[in-house]
Amino acid sequence: MKRNLILAPGPTQIPPDLCAALGKPIIHHRTPQFAQNLKDVIDGLQYVMQTKNDVYILTSSGTGAMEAAVCNLVGKGDKAITVEGGKFGERWTELCKVYGAEPQVIEVKWGTAVKPADIKALLDKDKSIKAVFVTLNETSTGVVSDIKSIAAVVKETNAVLVVDAISGLGVIDIKMDDWAVDVIVSASHKGFMLPPGISFVAMNEKAYKLVEKCETPRYYFDLRKSKKVYNDPDTPFTPAISIVVALVDSLRKFKEEGLDKLFARYAKLAEATRAAAKALGMTILAGDDCVSNAVTPIVLPEGVAGGKVVKIMRDTYGVTVAGGQGYLKGKIVRIAHMGCVDEYDILTGIACFEKALKDVGYSFEMGAGVKAAQEVFNS
Amino acid sequence: MKRNLILAPGPTQIPPDLCAALGKPIIHHRTPQFAQNLKDVIDGLQYVMQTKNDVYILTSSGTGAMEAAVCNLVGKGDKAITVEGGKFGERWTELCKVYGAEPQVIEVKWGTAVKPADIKALLDKDKSIKAVFVTLNETSTGVVSDIKSIAAVVKETNAVLVVDAISGLGVIDIKMDDWAVDVIVSASHKGFMLPPGISFVAMNEKAYKLVEKCETPRYYFDLRKSKKVYNDPDTPFTPAISIVVALVDSLRKFKEEGLDKLFARYAKLAEATRAAAKALGMTILAGDDCVSNAVTPIVLPEGVAGGKVVKIMRDTYGVTVAGGQGYLKGKIVRIAHMGCVDEYDILTGIACFEKALKDVGYSFEMGAGVKAAQEVFNS
Repeated sequence: MKRNLILAPGPTQIPPDLCAALGKPIIHHRTPQFAQNLKDVIDGLQYVMQTKNDVYILTSSGTGAMEAAVCNLVGKGDKAITVEGGKFGERWTELCKVYGAEPQVIEVKWGTAVKPADIKALLDKDKSIKAVFVTLNETSTGVVSDIKSIAAVVKETNAVLVVDAISGLGVIDIKMDDWAVDVIVSASHKGFMLPPGISFVAMNEKAYKLVEKCETPRYYFDLRKSKKVYNDPDTPFTPAISIVVALVDSLRKFKEEGLDKLFARYAKLAEATRAAAKALGMTILAGDDCVSNAVTPIVLPEGVAGGKVVKIMRDTYGVTVAGGQGYLKGKIVRIAHMGCVDEYDILTGIACFEKALKDVGYSFEMGAGVKAAQEVFNS
Repeated sequence: MKRNLILAPGPTQIPPDLCAALGKPIIHHRTPQFAQNLKDVIDGLQYVMQTKNDVYILTSSGTGAMEAAVCNLVGKGDKAITVEGGKFGERWTELCKVYGAEPQVIEVKWGTAVKPADIKALLDKDKSIKAVFVTLNETSTGVVSDIKSIAAVVKETNAVLVVDAISGLGVIDIKMDDWAVDVIVSASHKGFMLPPGISFVAMNEKAYKLVEKCETPRYYFDLRKSKKVYNDPDTPFTPAISIVVALVDSLRKFKEEGLDKLFARYAKLAEATRAAAKALGMTILAGDDCVSNAVTPIVLPEGVAGGKVVKIMRDTYGVTVAGGQGYLKGKIVRIAHMGCVDEYDILTGIACFEKALKDVGYSFEMGAGVKAAQEVFNS
């Protein structure tokens, strides 16, 4: 009877009705029945992304969608901008390099956000830059980028703005059409409360023009193939049917709750988690101006081993959170509040965090974290 | 209360216990708990492939694994052999061309199998050929290749043999180590009775040496990344967790039934399906020497519209089979017997086939197909 609560930034908890939907008898993918599911999924994703653009469904985890964005937009010798403020920003750079593009890397101190003016300066200096690759929610540091301001800069140029919204979409507001974001990539296993297995690439016409001209070799992730069968709708290769089918039910929840209420819920969960961490004598890695509502990056006090805390929380108490990545390994704990998470889950997570902190010998007032979180919820 | 039976060559029926496994609460993938699942999956796949080689798990449908095989083994200017005897053989050629390799295409009449001697002749003529890409079970035509004889030819050369066993593995015998097959690719949604979403690439050392030298740009499908984390075991990117977890249960069934019994079961189902088709006055597209035990390709009599038969079977009677692809569109019906299929399912499928044939006005002795199938089962 151990608790099984996931407060990690992906995969996230799957609500029981979506668990059941995943286990439905399979349907064949080349049927009108499946096409209706695909239609509903595209419609629902357009609602969450706030766009009328095409949304292509790929069978891969998030990195596959990132690769699709890169290999369909840039190629040998193409200039691009990438923003490295964490592990997933670095992935854009790696992908660009693999496909022969030349990324101009904006290095950002982990825990801070890129300044839109820095992107503007590079774009002003070099008019040949084709694409700007950024991250909505940098999962490794809990930092949110100011996509609205970045988009305002990029839309004045010939470059396209590509946003990795894998862990941010459905949790943090991103208005694809209003803000003129050219490409959004995301996946099923974060805000959408489903297992990993499908990913999404939404794209406007400005970006699709690059796809048509791009000469980078590609097949499985060739978005021209996706476009060709889009209107029916179909997928060029066998899709991860069960996840698509369950996503129909997931997306219905988004419309029922409404985006404003949804974003407000996550904001409150994040605020409570930050308050709890501070009440336990800890700091938040990301500044107030850029801290994420999807995942809270808690800096542990000197001498508290992050790896141990994460392990105890998971193996002894049944609550899965994430530790730090890269140079933050062992130094932070990341508590996510995305997808199927409510205030009682956060109280449970904080209570368990307190237990693990006690187990590793950290001295603090037991209960202070839960109390602080509860105060936020009840305010 | 309409029947919902899938006798299509992928996706295949999911048994109820595996449906339930797919809906289990999610676990995080960077945990010892998930690593144990991955270990069990690798072990089970090695059992089915009859190998001790590494088996890498990718999150994609089958084509992703085919792409991984191509982009990790061959590159610009590399010579390769592909065998085109159906739609999936053609896919090898397309993939090779996209990545700059130069496929020498052996064209085989649809419904017949490639002659190993033809592969030998090409290999003898050109010692620089790096890879031979073939298909175990050509799903579009119901033809099985003689992999054992092909492997005997290829193993005498520097070339590696790559087998698309997506729809064949777990249904038709393939002894990776005994026969010296260098690479096998497969996927979750055919013989393994699960939804599409994960794929597999098994590879011996001869092939892995090519992977290390191959300069084709790749990232998501880079098998060097898979190899690097293989011994732990882990996957380089977030895997389709729920399908991996359910695959543990699926593979347990393979060990319980045993490969010999399993292959014999499919052989019987196929024999009965062929007998039924013949009793209904039809022929089988593939010859007796190469017809598949995974899918039976039934040639419809002149004037019987295949598309209509498939549609009636599915929409009126609830049994999903497949029509023809490419130039066979409308001319054949493919009844699959792979995965979770027993003799009662085949009787149901044939009975429904008879109903649809009657509906389109084909004249035959009603019941003759079911009777013939039953005679095979009871013999």
